[in-house]
Amino acid sequence: MTDFAATKAMFHLPEGVLYLDGNSLGPLPKAAPARIQAMLTEEWGEMLITGWNRAGWMAQPMGLGDRVGKLIGAEPGHVVLGDTLSIKVYQALAAALALVPDRRVVLSDSGNFPSDLYMAEGLLGLLGPDYELRVVAPEDVADAITEDVAVLMLTEVDYGTGRLHDMAGLTRRAHAAGAVTVWDLAHSAGAIPVDLAGSGADFAVGCTYKYLNGGPGAPAFIYVAPRHAGHALPALSGWLGHAAPFDFHRKYRPGAGVERMRVGTPPILQLAALESALDIWDMADMGDVREKSLALCAHFIDAVEAACPMLTLASPRDGARRGSQVSFRFADGYAAMQALIDRGVIGDFRAPDIMRFGFTPLYIDEADVTAAAAIIADVMTNRLWDRPDYKVRAAVT
Amino acid sequence: MTDFAATKAMFHLPEGVLYLDGNSLGPLPKAAPARIQAMLTEEWGEMLITGWNRAGWMAQPMGLGDRVGKLIGAEPGHVVLGDTLSIKVYQALAAALALVPDRRVVLSDSGNFPSDLYMAEGLLGLLGPDYELRVVAPEDVADAITEDVAVLMLTEVDYGTGRLHDMAGLTRRAHAAGAVTVWDLAHSAGAIPVDLAGSGADFAVGCTYKYLNGGPGAPAFIYVAPRHAGHALPALSGWLGHAAPFDFHRKYRPGAGVERMRVGTPPILQLAALESALDIWDMADMGDVREKSLALCAHFIDAVEAACPMLTLASPRDGARRGSQVSFRFADGYAAMQALIDRGVIGDFRAPDIMRFGFTPLYIDEADVTAAAAIIADVMTNRLWDRPDYKVRAAVT
Repeated sequence: MTDFAATKAMFHLPEGVLYLDGNSLGPLPKAAPARIQAMLTEEWGEMLITGWNRAGWMAQPMGLGDRVGKLIGAEPGHVVLGDTLSIKVYQALAAALALVPDRRVVLSDSGNFPSDLYMAEGLLGLLGPDYELRVVAPEDVADAITEDVAVLMLTEVDYGTGRLHDMAGLTRRAHAAGAVTVWDLAHSAGAIPVDLAGSGADFAVGCTYKYLNGGPGAPAFIYVAPRHAGHALPALSGWLGHAAPFDFHRKYRPGAGVERMRVGTPPILQLAALESALDIWDMADMGDVREKSLALCAHFIDAVEAACPMLTLASPRDGARRGSQVSFRFADGYAAMQALIDRGVIGDFRAPDIMRFGFTPLYIDEADVTAAAAIIADVMTNRLWDRPDYKVRAAVT
Repeated sequence: MTDFAATKAMFHLPEGVLYLDGNSLGPLPKAAPARIQAMLTEEWGEMLITGWNRAGWMAQPMGLGDRVGKLIGAEPGHVVLGDTLSIKVYQALAAALALVPDRRVVLSDSGNFPSDLYMAEGLLGLLGPDYELRVVAPEDVADAITEDVAVLMLTEVDYGTGRLHDMAGLTRRAHAAGAVTVWDLAHSAGAIPVDLAGSGADFAVGCTYKYLNGGPGAPAFIYVAPRHAGHALPALSGWLGHAAPFDFHRKYRPGAGVERMRVGTPPILQLAALESALDIWDMADMGDVREKSLALCAHFIDAVEAACPMLTLASPRDGARRGSQVSFRFADGYAAMQALIDRGVIGDFRAPDIMRFGFTPLYIDEADVTAAAAIIADVMTNRLWDRPDYKVRAAVT
């Protein structure tokens, strides 16, 4: 049984803040400053260039990748860290398309994160005018998996509403139609149990700065199913994905398995921060996290709906169809969220009208949710953002 | 006049080490640990998600980009930081090719860094079989700029030999032939004066962990000439390059100028380290750096050649045709370099037979060069790596 009081004690949470935005940027693990200090002074400072081998820097994208992989049900050795999520989307989509060379359609949905769609747009633009990015409504995805679809590219948990796709079911359907799948786990990794191996997913990508708490700009990850790992090509074929990077051959030869998805020099400071966060994850069981997340979200919905009739639930009411966030629609949502932040309840706003709150059992408990709901009730019923003495203290991104 | 004793005092240099590998990874600025500690505790820890605006994280890729831009003669507002050098090569090359849509040839040379060639290979693979990566010998580049060349893609300073291309001359020649240029400044930025604006370069890219001392995995940079910045397309079209990333539109619309070359979430810890390094660069004049670099290299060549007849100079003897490194060829170079590192002289080895030494006036002075040359003479004349009691202490990457 996960000791959530113990995990909560391992994060720095500012005085007077109720942080419901761990789905955007997780908080600082208390151990991170010392870990990074040691990396700076003992590794970079003392080892200099030899740190790449002596301190194990070069191996960290695979080593820490496996620790992320455990949280998303990946087979060992099939997750690697690096770059940003958008870059990993591009690699996964390019590799997936190459596996279905006779088809030209990428199917996605309007609930996907815009950057995933932008990256697809950029890639298909290079591939030529006969390629098509087909975007349907989330509820129409299953029926839109037709025989011309090459790749089904979806974000499992909608960043705006928290709506959860059925990864295993849609993957089965895609495979039956001869398509391969790319799953974005940005709002899944560390939020809900994910079973990449069991679901049959072909490619998956995600970031580590949200629920995984790796820090601002923490690297992304990419998963390639074992059956594809030996022949999927990375498109962004950088030297650290080469079979022998330090032989400096002039021709690219892909490395073994998922390691070919590496591109350039890994960000060692960011990886040190992520390592501190993963140490906390070692104390947690994803089943326990999900159970507590569902309880916190239900409690939050009940409390907010009881006090704030002006807010409309934008997330599925059924916890089984939702990730680990709760969103409400409100026309003045941007201003209202500023006022909430001013009162110490940090959530965020997503255009056009979504007020978004993330629930992260590692460091948020029921008392926090009760306290946050009370402040939300006060701010919303008194429309604090409309008062002449109100000043926007901070802009939320 | 740059005070090099003052700049040297601002770096941590380990006891007993003569560090001639700043061309691979620069040393730790003494101010970096405190700067990063403050970023962790005061920014990430206390501001959480609001740090993106309140701490200015979101603006750093452009703000610090300008500080790098000053060192390479870029117009203000035309350099942005992010990703890795390989990713930026891909973006620059894709954007450059799109400017010359009727041609299919990318011209490069065998002195280019392999990852640049790999990235080009990956990109041209997506674009189709009529695209060609044409690789010639460095001395044949000028004559190979024929009327079918779309893009001339070169690294200004050869990573192996330090041989320096004539950026302005080759760019003029490329333009006369109707081609555009992509310059990789990995071994130029902070090593030699670069005049991007004056040379007419179209695109330039580089990394910040070598001569700029930004730390392991520090982000790359990209420059787009003002005349192209408003219509060059990034290919890797991520949300932070969008004109309005937080409007979450479904269609990509490129941001203003070089900012469209941003892709995903910037690495804030790495940027904090880079900032400490750029503070030291503010104390330096590139003309002074070049003058001292030439003197150090000349002294090193004289001292090593006088004592080590078994080493063959692989770098141009004429300083005007060389960057800020000196390389020697030696058949047992790998083992010899291990022995040197064991004795505290850190250079590196590049296959097949290059022993490489970088000269970095910010923290290396004439006494260091004299001392290093004496140790090299001892190791080489006594073939220390062949002695039975010799153990390899560290592997160089």
